[in-house]
Amino acid sequence: MTTLSAPFHAADFLGARIERANSATCVGLDPVVDRLPSGLAPNDPNNAAHCARSIELFSCAVLEAVVADAAAVKIQAACFERFGAEGSAALQRVLAQARASGLAVILDFKRGDIGISAEHYAASARAAGAHWTTISAYLGADGILPFLSEGHGAFALVRTSNPSGDALQALALSDGRTVAEAVADLVTELGKPSIGARGFSNLGAVVGATKRDEIASLRKRMPNTLFLVPGYGAQGGSADDVRACFTSGSRGALITASRSVLYPKPAVGTPWQQAIRDAARSFADEIRAIVH
Amino acid sequence: MTTLSAPFHAADFLGARIERANSATCVGLDPVVDRLPSGLAPNDPNNAAHCARSIELFSCAVLEAVVADAAAVKIQAACFERFGAEGSAALQRVLAQARASGLAVILDFKRGDIGISAEHYAASARAAGAHWTTISAYLGADGILPFLSEGHGAFALVRTSNPSGDALQALALSDGRTVAEAVADLVTELGKPSIGARGFSNLGAVVGATKRDEIASLRKRMPNTLFLVPGYGAQGGSADDVRACFTSGSRGALITASRSVLYPKPAVGTPWQQAIRDAARSFADEIRAIVH
Repeated sequence: MTTLSAPFHAADFLGARIERANSATCVGLDPVVDRLPSGLAPNDPNNAAHCARSIELFSCAVLEAVVADAAAVKIQAACFERFGAEGSAALQRVLAQARASGLAVILDFKRGDIGISAEHYAASARAAGAHWTTISAYLGADGILPFLSEGHGAFALVRTSNPSGDALQALALSDGRTVAEAVADLVTELGKPSIGARGFSNLGAVVGATKRDEIASLRKRMPNTLFLVPGYGAQGGSADDVRACFTSGSRGALITASRSVLYPKPAVGTPWQQAIRDAARSFADEIRAIVH
Repeated sequence: MTTLSAPFHAADFLGARIERANSATCVGLDPVVDRLPSGLAPNDPNNAAHCARSIELFSCAVLEAVVADAAAVKIQAACFERFGAEGSAALQRVLAQARASGLAVILDFKRGDIGISAEHYAASARAAGAHWTTISAYLGADGILPFLSEGHGAFALVRTSNPSGDALQALALSDGRTVAEAVADLVTELGKPSIGARGFSNLGAVVGATKRDEIASLRKRMPNTLFLVPGYGAQGGSADDVRACFTSGSRGALITASRSVLYPKPAVGTPWQQAIRDAARSFADEIRAIVH
């Protein structure tokens, strides 16, 4: 062996990408047929193959439009799997294009299984080109570690942005922590062996921007953890909430934008792909202003 | 309108099926390529289409072999999705055959998402023929209720059979409950509106047979909840553990068998499909003996 290339490390890769793009923005790609630009609407909305083709074309156009301003793309598996085998095939092509574009690629499939099943899910995500996945932490290490194989990354659900997440995540433990804080501590512990050159582990955390009273505590409990942050803007998360997710500057967090970027209200005469480009830039600039 | 057919109710349907089959056995169908009978091994184990075809043929043979002794089949999505679009197509055909066979069909995909994504997952499971799915409860009602649409059922992960599940599920809350018990109470509450004619709701619970000290308490907290019970036998759950999962007789629980049925060690000269048939009967008889 005369050459050595460093093994893949998802958190280092993502950190480098955030730096190069000067952007901590993650575009959430969750296309739904009835919101597509009119030219892309499926001929027959009851035909799965037509629908899968339409959302694939839209997704590829979105990738092109956002690549200059986003660090990462989070692709929602459900939107594609909805359309059966044709949807899965479309998802694979979109993942491949996302990867080829240079974006960090997150497959948002929120699996939570163990053993051989978890290994299957992880292997298929890697084979399709995803650098990261999203996963449930409820099963403990058995449900988490398989997703970190081969230097790949996973964002575990720690504190979600939806209102009914409180029913479980906000419960108080007898030791004073909340359930979400206990999950955070588990994430910190299981992430330690994979902390990379940039100081972050390959086990990240989903932390909703809407949970403003908890973000600082979660950041403190997970100092070496990348946060994937939904809920900024329309869902109620503020600039201050978002700022608390970062460790310093634009390090340590990815802020996601979905509907505001995918379905902007363009000025008359602006083509839809340009409107998406403008919306991605505008969102990325907003985040840039917050972190600087 | 001169005829009325009762709307589909997953728990009533499953209860009727258990009664008709005189069996509370659920066969876990999680085929892996390297354990297939030699005649079914893929020509090229690196070719996804070959692998998908092999596990499909095996799965369909298993369905035929177990239908007389099983009430339900739990089909592990990961084993199929591992093989991309071809795997998804195979999964859909296996689900269709399972449904046509008269078995209650559980799609074991352990999704945990909210809103439109949860609706997508639920709709695709229904469209593919599943009566039930498996889901995560960590996101609360937003992640659960979409899976109960149109009378369909979902088994939420309450207490899993794997060792590392304790890290979160066994933690004590300040009110004296464990995290798993809190999830159980949530399942009871969210299941109430869908309690059917047979006394069980469409929101079931996964409860591992290995958690013997907790089963009685969980059964008490979830009196109208169907239990889906992995972990009996090889994983350590005993006959007494299993008995405690039922409400009375063979009502209220499905006991799963996977590897012991899929990969039996046949006597010399016994064809593999016959060996699977024998293993399913033997497992079902064991459960019959426990509940009677």
